[in-house]
Amino acid sequence: MFTGLSAFPLTPMNETEIDERAFRGLIQRLAAAGVTSLGVLGSTGNYAYLTREERKRVVSLAVEEAGKVPVMVGIGALRTRQVLELAEDAQQAGAKALLLAPVSYQKLREEEVFQLYQSVNDAISVPLCLYDNPGTTQFTFSDELYGRLAGLSRLAAIKIPGVPDDAAQAKARIDRLRQLLPDKIAIGVSGDALAARGLNAGGELWFSVLGGLFPQVCQRIIRLSAAGQQLEAQNLSDRLAPLWALFAKYGSLRVVAALAARLGLTEAVNLPQPLASIDREDAGRLEAVLPLLE
Amino acid sequence: MFTGLSAFPLTPMNETEIDERAFRGLIQRLAAAGVTSLGVLGSTGNYAYLTREERKRVVSLAVEEAGKVPVMVGIGALRTRQVLELAEDAQQAGAKALLLAPVSYQKLREEEVFQLYQSVNDAISVPLCLYDNPGTTQFTFSDELYGRLAGLSRLAAIKIPGVPDDAAQAKARIDRLRQLLPDKIAIGVSGDALAARGLNAGGELWFSVLGGLFPQVCQRIIRLSAAGQQLEAQNLSDRLAPLWALFAKYGSLRVVAALAARLGLTEAVNLPQPLASIDREDAGRLEAVLPLLE
Repeated sequence: MFTGLSAFPLTPMNETEIDERAFRGLIQRLAAAGVTSLGVLGSTGNYAYLTREERKRVVSLAVEEAGKVPVMVGIGALRTRQVLELAEDAQQAGAKALLLAPVSYQKLREEEVFQLYQSVNDAISVPLCLYDNPGTTQFTFSDELYGRLAGLSRLAAIKIPGVPDDAAQAKARIDRLRQLLPDKIAIGVSGDALAARGLNAGGELWFSVLGGLFPQVCQRIIRLSAAGQQLEAQNLSDRLAPLWALFAKYGSLRVVAALAARLGLTEAVNLPQPLASIDREDAGRLEAVLPLLE
Repeated sequence: MFTGLSAFPLTPMNETEIDERAFRGLIQRLAAAGVTSLGVLGSTGNYAYLTREERKRVVSLAVEEAGKVPVMVGIGALRTRQVLELAEDAQQAGAKALLLAPVSYQKLREEEVFQLYQSVNDAISVPLCLYDNPGTTQFTFSDELYGRLAGLSRLAAIKIPGVPDDAAQAKARIDRLRQLLPDKIAIGVSGDALAARGLNAGGELWFSVLGGLFPQVCQRIIRLSAAGQQLEAQNLSDRLAPLWALFAKYGSLRVVAALAARLGLTEAVNLPQPLASIDREDAGRLEAVLPLLE
């Protein structure tokens, strides 16, 4: 399942509950588009903002609507005991893989992160994807730690942060990781603005925020890159520059949430407070981007 | 209550539950030492790692054991709806003030943080302390935002991060804040290693991790500074340099937790996994510091 497009949908919600109807709709859209896998309860799915019960419900809904598309589930939480509970819940609800970021309040130390992954590895029976997202976790994986974690039996993929925005440096980075990790561990790129760069440099799949709402444009970039049309893949990504600028300003979550509301796929309010939508003056910029996405 | 020493105790725990006996003991120690206030469920109290029920219980225990010492309670959480529930719980359990950090998973924007504080301000009936802790929240308050928040009716104190480690720069920083904020808002220093510097620069109280376990040495520094013996206050702090070095290496929480266990005030394990204690080779360094603290 760790190839092609792994689409990360929103979990639309308000201050009272999850918008189940809208969430089902988002999953149906992605299944119909034939994404390779779903990454529910990723950062885009606001996993950190939901209760255990809500997270279990989200997994059940996703599995129900996903058809044959395998569902990967984010199980990150501050405490190891919560992570283990969430792993069990997700597996029982039909998750085909688990996604784990070292979520922190107190900045974590390298050995603590290793122990967390080892505890989870020993408790689960599905593949595990390492979620390296320093922007939200405050933790930066060293290459040495990657190497140690590569020995865990369930580790099947790594979701790396954005590669350097220079073709040669991006290739050097992916080559270095490929050297460090056994072949059975897939290297997946993220940071949508840098994904074409990362795929052209040898990344094996794309864990995508944009792909959670607009899978087709992402699938096109993946196909071009896989067919050796690297320049065309990069050009297609570059045409989305106004979108990447908004991602940089607001974080991708707020922008994709605004797009989903604009398209009527969710209610106008779909994020948990205190998270708010983008400013009114940027809504016009979104309109200009829409034709490129649909 | 926003003067002198505001002592931040640990919440000792294991993977199953809070160690209530040990927690009661820590509060009794601090009440007996005559600290000015207690800051329970601060970062040192591991608020972010506990459930709503556990947090409510901790406040009740603290209020029971604190005697006449007023109890301030940390109410930070990722969602505004949780923060409002925690504020209500804490007030019902006897909190005399609330402490709020803009906890994040997605990095927060300035307007989002303002709205969060405004929502809480409008819902509570006790004084509010703004908890500025960029190391754990990933959010840095601008002076402009401080200025806006100063207009909130319940805002009574700000817990600022460590001042610059240069006497002139520290004084310039406190002077700038004093200019920005009405006199009714107390400016409290934190970052224990820089507290003497901050008090000598005009900080009005010390929100202290070390003071949650060793109040006397902190009270001595506060008294010296208040009596105009600034050099002596700084010298006393400087003698704790080996401790500050461990704080810098591990974060103050892990070091104070190790000290509490070493003194037999808690079980050996007192932190929630994945947080772990300090490395064995540093335990010896702690022994060398102990005589300075007791």
